[in-house]
Amino acid sequence: MTFELTILGSSSALPTSKRFPTAQLLNANERFFLIDCGEGTQMQLRRFKIRFGKISHIFISHIHGDHTFGLFGLLSSFSLLGRKNALHVYGPPRLKEILHIHFKAFDIHLPYPVIVHPVQFEREDIVYEDKSITVQSVPLKHRVPVCGFIFREKPRPLNLIKEKIEQYNIPVRELSKIQQGNDYVTEEGMIVSNKELTLPPYNQRSYAYFTDTVYLPAKISLLNNIDLLYHEATFEAKEGELARITGHSTTMQAAEMAKNAGVKKLLLGHFSARYKEISPLLKEARNIFPDTVAVEDGDQFNIPVGRIPRK
Amino acid sequence: MTFELTILGSSSALPTSKRFPTAQLLNANERFFLIDCGEGTQMQLRRFKIRFGKISHIFISHIHGDHTFGLFGLLSSFSLLGRKNALHVYGPPRLKEILHIHFKAFDIHLPYPVIVHPVQFEREDIVYEDKSITVQSVPLKHRVPVCGFIFREKPRPLNLIKEKIEQYNIPVRELSKIQQGNDYVTEEGMIVSNKELTLPPYNQRSYAYFTDTVYLPAKISLLNNIDLLYHEATFEAKEGELARITGHSTTMQAAEMAKNAGVKKLLLGHFSARYKEISPLLKEARNIFPDTVAVEDGDQFNIPVGRIPRK
Repeated sequence: MTFELTILGSSSALPTSKRFPTAQLLNANERFFLIDCGEGTQMQLRRFKIRFGKISHIFISHIHGDHTFGLFGLLSSFSLLGRKNALHVYGPPRLKEILHIHFKAFDIHLPYPVIVHPVQFEREDIVYEDKSITVQSVPLKHRVPVCGFIFREKPRPLNLIKEKIEQYNIPVRELSKIQQGNDYVTEEGMIVSNKELTLPPYNQRSYAYFTDTVYLPAKISLLNNIDLLYHEATFEAKEGELARITGHSTTMQAAEMAKNAGVKKLLLGHFSARYKEISPLLKEARNIFPDTVAVEDGDQFNIPVGRIPRK
Repeated sequence: MTFELTILGSSSALPTSKRFPTAQLLNANERFFLIDCGEGTQMQLRRFKIRFGKISHIFISHIHGDHTFGLFGLLSSFSLLGRKNALHVYGPPRLKEILHIHFKAFDIHLPYPVIVHPVQFEREDIVYEDKSITVQSVPLKHRVPVCGFIFREKPRPLNLIKEKIEQYNIPVRELSKIQQGNDYVTEEGMIVSNKELTLPPYNQRSYAYFTDTVYLPAKISLLNNIDLLYHEATFEAKEGELARITGHSTTMQAAEMAKNAGVKKLLLGHFSARYKEISPLLKEARNIFPDTVAVEDGDQFNIPVGRIPRK
């Protein structure tokens, strides 16, 4: 029941001696989603001891080198490691062509299927769904088409208390009704309340990844009740104009997004290489939204599983 | 008068938690030659505190990802750092097209000229020359066209001893003759021996880079008197057949090359990721050629300057 984000790279376009270009890994119940893939992502996966074979889904926010140049090496390494399983890549429509051109130029023939899913960049869309999670794309605004991604666990049913089910000798056919919240009526007509038979469901955890974007307050409603928001903060607060021109955000803007959306925790990253010290940037954001962290490569953020309190 | 090699990456195709893909930097008298450029080269340059602006010449041995995928990020970073100076890239004829295709796909417009010099892959050739150094390409044999490079300092003249020149009041027009080894005859007809007027010249230092190749004893004569030889040693000695099939060399073969050529020091690298411990591989090579080092990322090898002893 893990829901954990690992920061693989947190620099902006220019890497530093301590920060690799952007890449993150979300472990959602042992399904591993790689989010962006800057140069060196495969080395960071090695460094942080994440097994390559666990990754079958890669989400690419936009076609800039600091978010994509690691794809070539990673996909080649998958091949050297004998991968056979399909790899699904979600990203801008041009990504498929770019990968094709690259593999052709380098005469690379991967021994596993790469399925590129073009992401809708005009409106929000569910781009991935399985039994426990959905991934929503959120168009953002940068110098090239870009989208963020929101990972949300699906609602879960009530959990049956095994001992109680046995105690009342409840037939299997009744169980799904109880999981939906119904009381149970015994053959003798006695009502057993649902509360006695079930535990409340687990919480639906969520992570939103907003990178390389100008300040977009119009998207705040999409972030309501998000547990963890990563928002780029390339520049300090006073560089609002520079941020706007270059298609980026400031610390203050990221914090405003977090505050107005009411997220639980804010992560900042994608810092410009001009900042040798990040603590002043963090302080600016915390003045507006106290539960803010300036991420570093290797940081992990775990959202614990817990049961939703009954009303 | 520095002649120093820095290992930026020493893995074979699969990077490990400690080794990045192949890249090296040769500082030859403050001219910096980047040799191959595997993924993450720019991060290693940052890590080992090498200023990007110092690099104007890049040598690429062959078009495999683990020797080239770092080019894209590095060239983009040069651009972000405001580079204006031309960058010279020496490599396989197809390299120019590959770079062109890449920049087009990513819509990258570099603000500095990139001059790609196609390297002759059929025979040895001087591919670079300036007043103090030559770079010779040496065709090797791998699964794709590949060449090694030999960096050699040019012969230097005798050094004039300033005090002696003044003492004998030698006119400027005579100096070049003395530098060529001639004695000086004073107006009075006295012969001043060249040995009294000059110091012997500095040694000509040399570095040979042999990567991704099967064992090629035919090339030994090219390595005579080389100070420092890097030779790939992807496999241990007993894997000779695997080495041959995959186009690589073993520890023993690398050591045989060093021994038979009479180089001064041998560096091994490009180890297969299958070897968790490199010391057994090193031992195999040292049995044949004692002055062998198994390189690690960040290692530096300095060849000191010294005067050639007079005969």
